[in-house]
Amino acid sequence: MTIHKKLKMGMVGGGPGSFIGAIHRSASQMDGLIELCAGAFSSSPEKSRQSGEELMLDPSRVYSSYDEMFEKELALPESERIDIVSIVTPNNVHFDPTKKALEKGFHVVLDKPMTLNYEEAMELHQIIKSSDKLFCLTHTYTGYPMIKQAKQMVADGAIGEIRKVYVEYPQGWLWKLLEHEDNKQAEWRTDPLRNGKAGCFGDIGTHAFNLAEYVSGLKVAKICADLSIKIPGRMIDDDGAILMRFENDASGILTASQVDTGVENNLKIRIYGDKGGLEWQQEDCNSLIARWPNQPSQIFRAGTGYLTALANENIRTPAGHPEGYMEAFANIYRNFARCIYALEKGEEPKPEWKDFPGAEDGIRGMAFIDHVLASNVSEMKWTPLVVKY
Amino acid sequence: MTIHKKLKMGMVGGGPGSFIGAIHRSASQMDGLIELCAGAFSSSPEKSRQSGEELMLDPSRVYSSYDEMFEKELALPESERIDIVSIVTPNNVHFDPTKKALEKGFHVVLDKPMTLNYEEAMELHQIIKSSDKLFCLTHTYTGYPMIKQAKQMVADGAIGEIRKVYVEYPQGWLWKLLEHEDNKQAEWRTDPLRNGKAGCFGDIGTHAFNLAEYVSGLKVAKICADLSIKIPGRMIDDDGAILMRFENDASGILTASQVDTGVENNLKIRIYGDKGGLEWQQEDCNSLIARWPNQPSQIFRAGTGYLTALANENIRTPAGHPEGYMEAFANIYRNFARCIYALEKGEEPKPEWKDFPGAEDGIRGMAFIDHVLASNVSEMKWTPLVVKY
Amino acid sequence: MTIHKKLKMGMVGGGPGSFIGAIHRSASQMDGLIELCAGAFSSSPEKSRQSGEELMLDPSRVYSSYDEMFEKELALPESERIDIVSIVTPNNVHFDPTKKALEKGFHVVLDKPMTLNYEEAMELHQIIKSSDKLFCLTHTYTGYPMIKQAKQMVADGAIGEIRKVYVEYPQGWLWKLLEHEDNKQAEWRTDPLRNGKAGCFGDIGTHAFNLAEYVSGLKVAKICADLSIKIPGRMIDDDGAILMRFENDASGILTASQVDTGVENNLKIRIYGDKGGLEWQQEDCNSLIARWPNQPSQIFRAGTGYLTALANENIRTPAGHPEGYMEAFANIYRNFARCIYALEKGEEPKPEWKDFPGAEDGIRGMAFIDHVLASNVSEMKWTPLVVKY
Amino acid sequence: MTIHKKLKMGMVGGGPGSFIGAIHRSASQMDGLIELCAGAFSSSPEKSRQSGEELMLDPSRVYSSYDEMFEKELALPESERIDIVSIVTPNNVHFDPTKKALEKGFHVVLDKPMTLNYEEAMELHQIIKSSDKLFCLTHTYTGYPMIKQAKQMVADGAIGEIRKVYVEYPQGWLWKLLEHEDNKQAEWRTDPLRNGKAGCFGDIGTHAFNLAEYVSGLKVAKICADLSIKIPGRMIDDDGAILMRFENDASGILTASQVDTGVENNLKIRIYGDKGGLEWQQEDCNSLIARWPNQPSQIFRAGTGYLTALANENIRTPAGHPEGYMEAFANIYRNFARCIYALEKGEEPKPEWKDFPGAEDGIRGMAFIDHVLASNVSEMKWTPLVVKY
Repeated sequence: MTIHKKLKMGMVGGGPGSFIGAIHRSASQMDGLIELCAGAFSSSPEKSRQSGEELMLDPSRVYSSYDEMFEKELALPESERIDIVSIVTPNNVHFDPTKKALEKGFHVVLDKPMTLNYEEAMELHQIIKSSDKLFCLTHTYTGYPMIKQAKQMVADGAIGEIRKVYVEYPQGWLWKLLEHEDNKQAEWRTDPLRNGKAGCFGDIGTHAFNLAEYVSGLKVAKICADLSIKIPGRMIDDDGAILMRFENDASGILTASQVDTGVENNLKIRIYGDKGGLEWQQEDCNSLIARWPNQPSQIFRAGTGYLTALANENIRTPAGHPEGYMEAFANIYRNFARCIYALEKGEEPKPEWKDFPGAEDGIRGMAFIDHVLASNVSEMKWTPLVVKY
Repeated sequence: MTIHKKLKMGMVGGGPGSFIGAIHRSASQMDGLIELCAGAFSSSPEKSRQSGEELMLDPSRVYSSYDEMFEKELALPESERIDIVSIVTPNNVHFDPTKKALEKGFHVVLDKPMTLNYEEAMELHQIIKSSDKLFCLTHTYTGYPMIKQAKQMVADGAIGEIRKVYVEYPQGWLWKLLEHEDNKQAEWRTDPLRNGKAGCFGDIGTHAFNLAEYVSGLKVAKICADLSIKIPGRMIDDDGAILMRFENDASGILTASQVDTGVENNLKIRIYGDKGGLEWQQEDCNSLIARWPNQPSQIFRAGTGYLTALANENIRTPAGHPEGYMEAFANIYRNFARCIYALEKGEEPKPEWKDFPGAEDGIRGMAFIDHVLASNVSEMKWTPLVVKY
Repeated sequence: MTIHKKLKMGMVGGGPGSFIGAIHRSASQMDGLIELCAGAFSSSPEKSRQSGEELMLDPSRVYSSYDEMFEKELALPESERIDIVSIVTPNNVHFDPTKKALEKGFHVVLDKPMTLNYEEAMELHQIIKSSDKLFCLTHTYTGYPMIKQAKQMVADGAIGEIRKVYVEYPQGWLWKLLEHEDNKQAEWRTDPLRNGKAGCFGDIGTHAFNLAEYVSGLKVAKICADLSIKIPGRMIDDDGAILMRFENDASGILTASQVDTGVENNLKIRIYGDKGGLEWQQEDCNSLIARWPNQPSQIFRAGTGYLTALANENIRTPAGHPEGYMEAFANIYRNFARCIYALEKGEEPKPEWKDFPGAEDGIRGMAFIDHVLASNVSEMKWTPLVVKY
Repeated sequence: MTIHKKLKMGMVGGGPGSFIGAIHRSASQMDGLIELCAGAFSSSPEKSRQSGEELMLDPSRVYSSYDEMFEKELALPESERIDIVSIVTPNNVHFDPTKKALEKGFHVVLDKPMTLNYEEAMELHQIIKSSDKLFCLTHTYTGYPMIKQAKQMVADGAIGEIRKVYVEYPQGWLWKLLEHEDNKQAEWRTDPLRNGKAGCFGDIGTHAFNLAEYVSGLKVAKICADLSIKIPGRMIDDDGAILMRFENDASGILTASQVDTGVENNLKIRIYGDKGGLEWQQEDCNSLIARWPNQPSQIFRAGTGYLTALANENIRTPAGHPEGYMEAFANIYRNFARCIYALEKGEEPKPEWKDFPGAEDGIRGMAFIDHVLASNVSEMKWTPLVVKY
């Protein structure tokens, strides 16, 4: 597929002190398909201007609000105007800019979780469905090539009928009351008004849930949650564990924590079927371990010649040149860009390119949060997970 | 402490096809404190005789039943008679030989779980308490030096107040209906009459539970269990997960499986407090990882000069000469033997020597099984774990 | 430091089938400081045009030769013209474009090794010294943050006086005569005319050598080499090992291979002094293991708060979000760009920014190749490594 | 094979402060085939008596010298007399007791290296050849089951014609002048009179050499050595590296050190052929990694059902129950005992049982030491390794 122009992107959020904004910028630029051309980086016009300057943008395209950005960009000639809006604000500022961007005719990349609550997600879903623009939700971890390899191997029946899924997302960074120590990340992520009513489970529990469903190809049918606030004075959950059953009655265990003191960020998934098992962890993200009964385990590696197309379309370097988190993120952007190009040319994108997370992932994530919180306060063991789209 | 005679041991069970009998024999002999002198290795006299011959025992001390062994050994002069009875039979033959051995005046080492059910365990506990002989239950994993290091570091407050315990015991060997394929181990371990009513959770779930309480120094207060029989045709659980809360409200997650296809036996525990965390897994049993906020993680290693006395008393080789499962098992036997010597000499054993599992571990294990099964069929989330001694 | 414009880059080489060209493009773009604006991607005008189209460049800035590129870019207004030339051709096309680019007034990023031979390197060095433009040689591995951490810890005396350096660069991709199987990479890298007279030692041995000197802060004083051609029919070395002594008489062992069948690319360095040791390997590139006598080993990790400035200036994500090879490469480009900005503004760059490889690394690498080949055919054990600049 | 009596063992050396004596005792006893019945544990009669008491031996069989032991044991009835002499003294007391024990009609297990020097080894070889008793030299590392698996896979051609062998034995325990700090181990191992003229290369270099030849099935043909004394005041080498060529011209690199500060004991071997490669390290001793071109690597594991007979005969526990150094040592004793039983019964032992190290390993080890020292002081690169038996 020959492409003739780079896609232009405008960013909402990602100003001074943002973590994920810088990630989105690097990830989107890495493959040379997307260039950052505009931004409303902060609700403070001065901070937005400052970010624009640091990013060396044309000052005329650095805006004080996303409303201004949408309006003024639309006034530009189509060849100059941004194609994509990337939204990296706290969760309470997801719904409105996404809705407006789509309605104004921009493609949207939105950081997860989809919205502040399930109701917003449902409403946004309708808008996305009725839009002719593309929508992407950055559940980063499904961008790792070896996660894609796992998904494909499961789908191909390599490990047989799934019996068991373990997924864990342990962190320790909120091991103390960091939100009282002038830490911007800690502040908004522990504030129910900006982050949503689930803390740890909104931030990383949803990633673990998304990953489990993505790799297994199965939907979770019921859950049993036990959440905690481990640090006195904190307002929302910072730790928890969930028993799960999938639609085929496979068992699952999902744990997530922000208070496993000293732990970094080692997302891990293990999945076992009646023929074998697969194991992956972010700390060794370029390996996928396959377990077999009465045969040596195998180490599938990124960048090798024996992987599935789904993995191969998401790698840049030969085996042994480690790719990481940023490349996983970049894979989402690259696939999104490839689909935009295909759309523009009226072509059907490769199935591997369409494999980026979207509205359904977002709605399921928001429903997951609601059901986890309900289960957590329920005296009953099981809470069915019923999600309407 | 100078010792003047080896302890003599008689074995109950451990005949042809036994796995754990051979382990007990090697572990007890490794340190030269105990010698195997007698045995009733099978309920089949011929098989018992055959085992005795293979083990090169004096044929006159190879018996057709443990009753016969106890009677005839007692008839021997005290200096020749066995001191210790090691019981390695299936679970339904734990109570009776233990009871009789203690009542006849022998020290007893019993393979876990303690008995076939909680009632037997309670009755046995009374017998143990009223006996002046020593009793040991081989919860192997507490014999690892780095587990002992972890226990001591937790007790010393190194990682602060405990918030979280993850313990998992994944196996895959029963991934298919092996009990229908002429596999003696699979047969009795999946037979509720010989194994007890809990399968996976009787066999290895109890180990994980014991380890969690041992390392944390905390008792589990309530549980929420979800067990499965993943292989159609199997009679008892082969997989499960449990949410737990400890007496201090710390959260716990315990998983155990025999059907994680392709997985070996990688028991793992991770424990986090408000100052740091500790991580250990059997596959790397000579390392203990310590996690700290804003400091590099540390790798504590067996055989080094900086460990606690509790670890140091349970190691044989300098750092880098890997010890393993057999040595962990031997540590239990060695500590047990050291305590017998001290008892015989009227001395107080070192506190480190007394650190071997016994009746309380056994009763808690049997109670755990009962409560797990009750929780599993309960519709309520939480089942209190109340254990009377 | 506020910056007001992106740096514009033109590429020499990197056309269809190139591996390293794509790496340079991604690495240079990742941080948003550099944009690819022009290129002479192939000696075939048609292939160059095709690459330019795929890269969505303005066709008027896609050239048929680097000579043409230099000339036409110079004719553009200064604000449009490229600032940097990135040279990613086979080794026989390093000297000429670098020389010309510098003489025309462009900054140059050159893929390693510096030139086809030592003489070219010496001549180029003079040109670089007399130029007021900056020159960078992409010895990628010194771009890893944990390598920089190691260098700084060694320089700070953390492990004391250096006694021993192990460095190894094992690959297996040339395990068979791939150069006869229509593999473009294998073809030029095993062709002495395009690659230079050393094969494995030109390609990856020089990386290992550079890394050893970079981390240790010591120069190699003498070497003893044993190279091989393990695959009959190959023209240049594909395997070898070198004994080394450093200027302080520390011992070193350097191994490099392209025929360790099945091995990927696991560059590894270990360095020991009289107080401790440091160990790093590319497969776990975000960790640096520190060894201490009679103390637990420590795991220093990228993205944490306790690293040196030299490491911290070369990281993008918090601990546990793995960065990899591309980010190490991007660190070199980012530091180069930061130095260009400082130069343009007449400011002194931070010392951490100046820490990118340059002419001295290149000359030492070329001298290393010559001396390795001389030692290899010598019957004497030691060959002094004498490098004139 | 049914066996009717345990083998009786007498020990020479292994008194207070000995490391390896305790290892030999545990290893020999673990499998219940050998019992320690006598000993001359020290050249000090009082220390020998004290060791005998601690080991709970019959005082009448604790001797003041090995001469006394041999004489008095021979005077005992054959059914009571020791069968095996285990010699664990410093290297200067290897030759004489071995010679005498064999000549008196005892089987001998001797700790490595074989003798103090090559001449003694040659003389001892003649004695061994003319004796009808068995001789075993405890090159421990060839007792590991996964090393035996590697040897067999190489012999079976699994990785094809060997091209490359890396073997390394890094330690750090002699990182300072410990021999001046009242450390008995350090004292004799750095004393040329008791240890022999090679330090590090006598102690562990020989192990690495033995392992390389054992696994590869190839003999080393020439070497190029660079040894050091890294700690001023030390009398013999504590560090070194050797380039090697095998008889088929395969390349080898052997490194050994006692001054890699902070390092434990991680012996490691990697071997590559024209079809694949194998990698093993003591820290993960139950795994053998197999590398293949264009296929996932495999992890072969001890205790599984898919290993060769040579590995299976040397394992006690199912997969996932880690065995270690002591079990590797015990494998040597067990195989030795099995061969003695076969000899006594006039049967041919299984080929797997005969796979324990003996005189040829010992002579080659002593020749290796001589040639390494010669090469170290030679100005020529290569020193042929010519060993006469």
